[in-house]
Amino acid sequence: MLVVMQTQATAAEIERVVQAIRDMNLTPHPLPGAVRTAIGITGNIGAVDSRTLEVLPGVMELIRVTKPYKLASREMHEADTFVRLPQTVIGPGTFTLIAGPCSVENEAMILRTAEFLRERGVHLLRAGAFKPRTSPYSFQGLGLEGLRILTRVREKTGIGIVTELMDTDNADAVEQAADILQIGTRNMQNFSLLKRVGKAKKPVLLKRGMSATLEDWLMAAEYVMAGGNYHVVLCERGVRTFSDHSRNTLDLSVIPPAKKLSHLPILVDPSHGTGKRDHVPPMALAALAAGADGLLLEIHPDPDHAQSDGAQSLDFAAFDHLLESIKRLADPLGKVIN
Amino acid sequence: MLVVMQTQATAAEIERVVQAIRDMNLTPHPLPGAVRTAIGITGNIGAVDSRTLEVLPGVMELIRVTKPYKLASREMHEADTFVRLPQTVIGPGTFTLIAGPCSVENEAMILRTAEFLRERGVHLLRAGAFKPRTSPYSFQGLGLEGLRILTRVREKTGIGIVTELMDTDNADAVEQAADILQIGTRNMQNFSLLKRVGKAKKPVLLKRGMSATLEDWLMAAEYVMAGGNYHVVLCERGVRTFSDHSRNTLDLSVIPPAKKLSHLPILVDPSHGTGKRDHVPPMALAALAAGADGLLLEIHPDPDHAQSDGAQSLDFAAFDHLLESIKRLADPLGKVIN
Amino acid sequence: MLVVMQTQATAAEIERVVQAIRDMNLTPHPLPGAVRTAIGITGNIGAVDSRTLEVLPGVMELIRVTKPYKLASREMHEADTFVRLPQTVIGPGTFTLIAGPCSVENEAMILRTAEFLRERGVHLLRAGAFKPRTSPYSFQGLGLEGLRILTRVREKTGIGIVTELMDTDNADAVEQAADILQIGTRNMQNFSLLKRVGKAKKPVLLKRGMSATLEDWLMAAEYVMAGGNYHVVLCERGVRTFSDHSRNTLDLSVIPPAKKLSHLPILVDPSHGTGKRDHVPPMALAALAAGADGLLLEIHPDPDHAQSDGAQSLDFAAFDHLLESIKRLADPLGKVIN
Amino acid sequence: MLVVMQTQATAAEIERVVQAIRDMNLTPHPLPGAVRTAIGITGNIGAVDSRTLEVLPGVMELIRVTKPYKLASREMHEADTFVRLPQTVIGPGTFTLIAGPCSVENEAMILRTAEFLRERGVHLLRAGAFKPRTSPYSFQGLGLEGLRILTRVREKTGIGIVTELMDTDNADAVEQAADILQIGTRNMQNFSLLKRVGKAKKPVLLKRGMSATLEDWLMAAEYVMAGGNYHVVLCERGVRTFSDHSRNTLDLSVIPPAKKLSHLPILVDPSHGTGKRDHVPPMALAALAAGADGLLLEIHPDPDHAQSDGAQSLDFAAFDHLLESIKRLADPLGKVIN
Repeated sequence: MLVVMQTQATAAEIERVVQAIRDMNLTPHPLPGAVRTAIGITGNIGAVDSRTLEVLPGVMELIRVTKPYKLASREMHEADTFVRLPQTVIGPGTFTLIAGPCSVENEAMILRTAEFLRERGVHLLRAGAFKPRTSPYSFQGLGLEGLRILTRVREKTGIGIVTELMDTDNADAVEQAADILQIGTRNMQNFSLLKRVGKAKKPVLLKRGMSATLEDWLMAAEYVMAGGNYHVVLCERGVRTFSDHSRNTLDLSVIPPAKKLSHLPILVDPSHGTGKRDHVPPMALAALAAGADGLLLEIHPDPDHAQSDGAQSLDFAAFDHLLESIKRLADPLGKVIN
Repeated sequence: MLVVMQTQATAAEIERVVQAIRDMNLTPHPLPGAVRTAIGITGNIGAVDSRTLEVLPGVMELIRVTKPYKLASREMHEADTFVRLPQTVIGPGTFTLIAGPCSVENEAMILRTAEFLRERGVHLLRAGAFKPRTSPYSFQGLGLEGLRILTRVREKTGIGIVTELMDTDNADAVEQAADILQIGTRNMQNFSLLKRVGKAKKPVLLKRGMSATLEDWLMAAEYVMAGGNYHVVLCERGVRTFSDHSRNTLDLSVIPPAKKLSHLPILVDPSHGTGKRDHVPPMALAALAAGADGLLLEIHPDPDHAQSDGAQSLDFAAFDHLLESIKRLADPLGKVIN
Repeated sequence: MLVVMQTQATAAEIERVVQAIRDMNLTPHPLPGAVRTAIGITGNIGAVDSRTLEVLPGVMELIRVTKPYKLASREMHEADTFVRLPQTVIGPGTFTLIAGPCSVENEAMILRTAEFLRERGVHLLRAGAFKPRTSPYSFQGLGLEGLRILTRVREKTGIGIVTELMDTDNADAVEQAADILQIGTRNMQNFSLLKRVGKAKKPVLLKRGMSATLEDWLMAAEYVMAGGNYHVVLCERGVRTFSDHSRNTLDLSVIPPAKKLSHLPILVDPSHGTGKRDHVPPMALAALAAGADGLLLEIHPDPDHAQSDGAQSLDFAAFDHLLESIKRLADPLGKVIN
Repeated sequence: MLVVMQTQATAAEIERVVQAIRDMNLTPHPLPGAVRTAIGITGNIGAVDSRTLEVLPGVMELIRVTKPYKLASREMHEADTFVRLPQTVIGPGTFTLIAGPCSVENEAMILRTAEFLRERGVHLLRAGAFKPRTSPYSFQGLGLEGLRILTRVREKTGIGIVTELMDTDNADAVEQAADILQIGTRNMQNFSLLKRVGKAKKPVLLKRGMSATLEDWLMAAEYVMAGGNYHVVLCERGVRTFSDHSRNTLDLSVIPPAKKLSHLPILVDPSHGTGKRDHVPPMALAALAAGADGLLLEIHPDPDHAQSDGAQSLDFAAFDHLLESIKRLADPLGKVIN
């Protein structure tokens, strides 16, 4: 950490900051400069609320140097993490497709989608039994009945299940049904939920919050990992900006820095990211080219009659078309589809 | 709702949209114009996922006219809502102060703060027993012991308690201890939690999410109200933007439109909004002048040694100074402090 | 346009709006609904300041239907625009590379860069003679001497020149030296400058403003085109958001809607978009996969000693490496590099 | 400046950075810590492109300590700046009102507005002769004829003129007509224009750019001041965020940090900031309470028939009503209206 003093700071003010640092059992390193003095701090800074130094007289600002995440950090864990599932593995060098409808509507459509995906060699199906909806008057999902449908389809087809957990009340049921527990964008900083999935035996797909910085996101992963569950997969799904040409602003540029700062795999959800089915295929290919480890895609046997998110869902023909394009690009990019 | 057709849309495409609208049991009103046709829709549109029309051939865009919230809307409920508490009332014409430390640290400091506030005529104390912290390694609050402290201080001093509820697991305990249940910014769209407090017997203070539009925010209030709890108080606390001169961007400009679109009272939290104690008083006064119904303020007997958020907390002398300024402005603004 | 009335609007208020619309020589179409009345407007709406209707009593909001741009719109001009240059052509089905240093530092380095690019089959060199710098104390470019260097290198090597025009004072000189006139992000709404290049005989590369919506951007293109210069190339270079992991947030998701709404070609500048050379190659490939018509890249013979933007510049070896990757992807994406 | 090394950085990498700093004629101060080494830098850092250090092997990030602005900085110039005009003075302790129509429509309305303002003791009139409009098809202002009208009204009434300069071509004419040269939000980083007004003999009103950080804004002021014109007045007018309840997000929270970091006066424009006349008065009062030194307001004798921005203009009665409220608040806030 670095304390930057104002140019007109007095010697007494500098000394007071030096003493305050010592009071925290940290070591101050005064750095007198031409214009001002800065004071470097070394020691175990993690637990310090740095802003208490910031309000001392003569202090201009306080600059944090150490990243607050550890377990999620590549500095602490240099090797890439591969998340291993019964059906497949997620991580660098591969490109994992997870597809399916926004919500479980009935068993027939889930079964039909699972069989379609299995025929294409796709190992993971996404579908929500519990749905976070902005309106209390919208369809909220089938709930436990949805989980039972997913379980039966998993048994019949062998497909892996990715489904969202919205609260601790249903955690046991979702954990039993799912191969991957999805934490939605609106719950990225629902810390009670993060602590709960930190104790789960299943991997966690952690969607980026709508206004989460990369650091916020990695800190949310840290919550899960600090609980003992190291199998976290990040998923970029668009952030909220002034830009109004799409439902959200899909931030593919987060992929290279996420890969640099963390060892966790990262997927992209171009369906929520764009909100329009026509824009999904180009952004899916762009995600692949940008270095993502896979995609989360909304597909539906009959999108125009979907109970939710139909406008951003691909039909099966469009998915096949996209899959062909992905196959053509994966090899030159050194990625194996799985 | 209005469907806007592309200029080159064919008569057949227009007819298909008209038919799709009829299939939804709604009434289409084609509006042929010089350049393009638009199609007005009337009927009970609430339940329709409008985006399914958007993907029909020839459609350029779909414009929603009706606001999706009802119970929170001033159009449906013209009179201002006053939230009545044992200690005071929150609503227009008044200016309610809620003050206290970020977190319950121990009983002595809570008692001392409560007595200080009571002497100044302040009726509500804020303090967190459960703390949402971005880092899993930061102090997470005293939990149930914190609630017990708040309960004892309430009994001793008569002060009302505003405290945060972070998950449904602790809902009963928090509901028993609190006069107002606070929903934090990171949980504004934690729909399971919103449904739970919709069934609570205590009023809800609903903080705006970090990237919530006014509509998102009122929809979150709608969730609570749809559950039967009409006693919702909005609280602006800063949103996340590119602007980096303060911790968040305190959006006082939301007050006039919130007052226009909704009948709910609205408070402002300048402590989280600015993140720096020096900037709290000017923004507190600005909130009053902009038409807010009160403030949520962080104060601490000894901010430099607070366990959390010390840098944005006022000490008692600074609070007294601010209170004097508020008193001078309240009368010319037609507000009674309570 | 559509005027949405409040639910409690009176018949007299509705009639007043209808009359106000007639006063503008437009045709009102009242649309009574279950909850409220809306009033469609047809006629030549372009010149109307719609917000005057918005403030009439009983009006809730006013919704614009017609896009304000015409010449830049695909609805008015369905065929893709190809911008033809002496050296190459920019447009769909092709992928144009424009590379070079941030600024013209001296003739030797420009010549060396031009020869390097020509050997690789790249036809266009970018380099700034006039540099917009956030600090008045930073290197501001060589000015007219820079233009003379570019002119000599163009003569020697045949490479096309892309260089920025910052003000009308130097417009004649830049127009003479350049094959493409670049309008920088900070000048996207410098309307005097847009009008000037609307009269130029050279194509215009129009960078997106830091907080420009797609509509703002197409309106800026409309300014140029309204002056008679139809040869406009859009260039996405990152927008400003809360996201702090890179210098700007490169918004590749703007490509599909830009292609849908406009017939103009669109390039991407991953150097400014990311601000870090390590992140340039993945985002360059992602731009290609997302459907961009080319790239604007910063390269430098010795980036660590560049006078500006060295940290985001590729050296020649890194450019060669990226070029190989682009070549492998272009064919499966149906793009010809030029 | 501070270079933060990666935890696994080698001694050789640290040495290379130390040497690179010495090569810049700066002094390195290595700070070995428990987890990583940081290297403080002292010396005259202003001219260094710091990012060249950032790309050296082993470097994690580079943190700038010194603010890049000097003349605009309170550290360099502790006393508040007062901008003195023939008619009045702008600065702390006072509250300056600048009011008038968006654009000069004709002489009668300007004269009527000026006389109205003079009767109320307002000394400065704002009105645009040159108008930056997002559409090339909108009214662009009366140009030089508009300046002549302003000059005649100034002579007749003695009122001071605040009017916008859009380009260097018209700089002499605008400088002659105006008492204050306004630089619009879209030109905040039009550096050629900033350099031109840096040589002007009249004060400059510098509006904040739509996505300008406080530092960007002060750097724009620095451009003007570096040219020799120290009479700069800042003006907050709303920034662009995801928030859609108003035309822009008026950022009143910038006032306290602007006052802390700079000695320049700061005004607020609630008309552009909100875009709706009903929301102007509360935000005007909030600006006063937040510590602004004055307001820029759009008023119009007949807003419903204004040629531009009618929806955000107050009529004379509404202005009078607002003036009464301002008068009631100014005294308790220690401000003298002028």
